[in-house]
Amino acid sequence: MKLLLLHADFMEWEPTKPALRSAEPTTKERKRVDDALVVMISVEEGDDEEKIGPAADSIEEQFQRVKPSRIVIYPWVHLSQRPSKPYTALTIIKELARELERRGYEVHRAPFGWYKAFTISVKGHPLAELSRSF
Amino acid sequence: MKLLLLHADFMEWEPTKPALRSAEPTTKERKRVDDALVVMISVEEGDDEEKIGPAADSIEEQFQRVKPSRIVIYPWVHLSQRPSKPYTALTIIKELARELERRGYEVHRAPFGWYKAFTISVKGHPLAELSRSF
Repeated sequence: MKLLLLHADFMEWEPTKPALRSAEPTTKERKRVDDALVVMISVEEGDDEEKIGPAADSIEEQFQRVKPSRIVIYPWVHLSQRPSKPYTALTIIKELARELERRGYEVHRAPFGWYKAFTISVKGHPLAELSRSF
Repeated sequence: MKLLLLHADFMEWEPTKPALRSAEPTTKERKRVDDALVVMISVEEGDDEEKIGPAADSIEEQFQRVKPSRIVIYPWVHLSQRPSKPYTALTIIKELARELERRGYEVHRAPFGWYKAFTISVKGHPLAELSRSF
C-alpha cells in the first residue's frame, strides 16, 4: 500500500466517466472539501485488511501533526507499479475510511473507478507532503 | 525514473523554504502556468543521461495526444521509493527540460530542492493522467 499525505487548503473533484466496470455508483456532482489531510492511496498486490490498522495509525499521526479539519481519501493508482485488483482496492479503501470514522474523524471519500477532474491546493510548509509505504 | 503526466488547466506554485542544501537559487514568487502537460518527476538511484531521450519521447508523445500549450516540469520525490542523490536529480531534470526545449516546446520548470505550495487543476478526460517508469 502506498499513501501520499497532502495537507491541503482545499480539494475538489468531479467524476466524469467510469474508468472500470467496477466503478462505484456515484453522482457526477463536483465536490469540494476545505482544510483537509488528503490521503492519495494505491492499494497494491498482496495487500489485505492487515494493512488497515497501520495505515490508519500513520494517517492519524500526520493529522495530529498538521491539524487540518477533516480527511479526504482519494484513490490514485499512480503511486504504485503493481496495483491490486480493483475489488481488493475498493474493499480496503472503504474499510480504511470506516476505521478513520470510528476513530472520530470526518472522512470524505472520492469515488473509486472513475475518471475524475480534480483541483488540489497543497500548503507549502515542510510537513505538508509525506509519502508512506506499507 | 518515474514520471506522472497530468493534463492540467493550470498549475501554480510558490517556493516557501529550501528543503535541501542543494536547493536551486530562485525567487519566492508565485508562478502560474495555464493549459499545460505537467510532468511530475522523480529521478531514481542508477538513473543517468541515457534516460533523458526515452523520457522526452514519452512526454512528447503524450503532448501530441492531449495537445496542451506548454510543459511544466515539477520535481516530486514522492513517486519513488529510491530517489537518486539531489545533484543527479537536478542535473537530469535540467537536461530533460533543455531537450524538450530543443524539440520546440515551451518548458517551465519548478525549482528543485524547495518546499513549495502548489495548486493543480487536472482535467477529467481518460488521457489526463498517465504514469511512466524508465
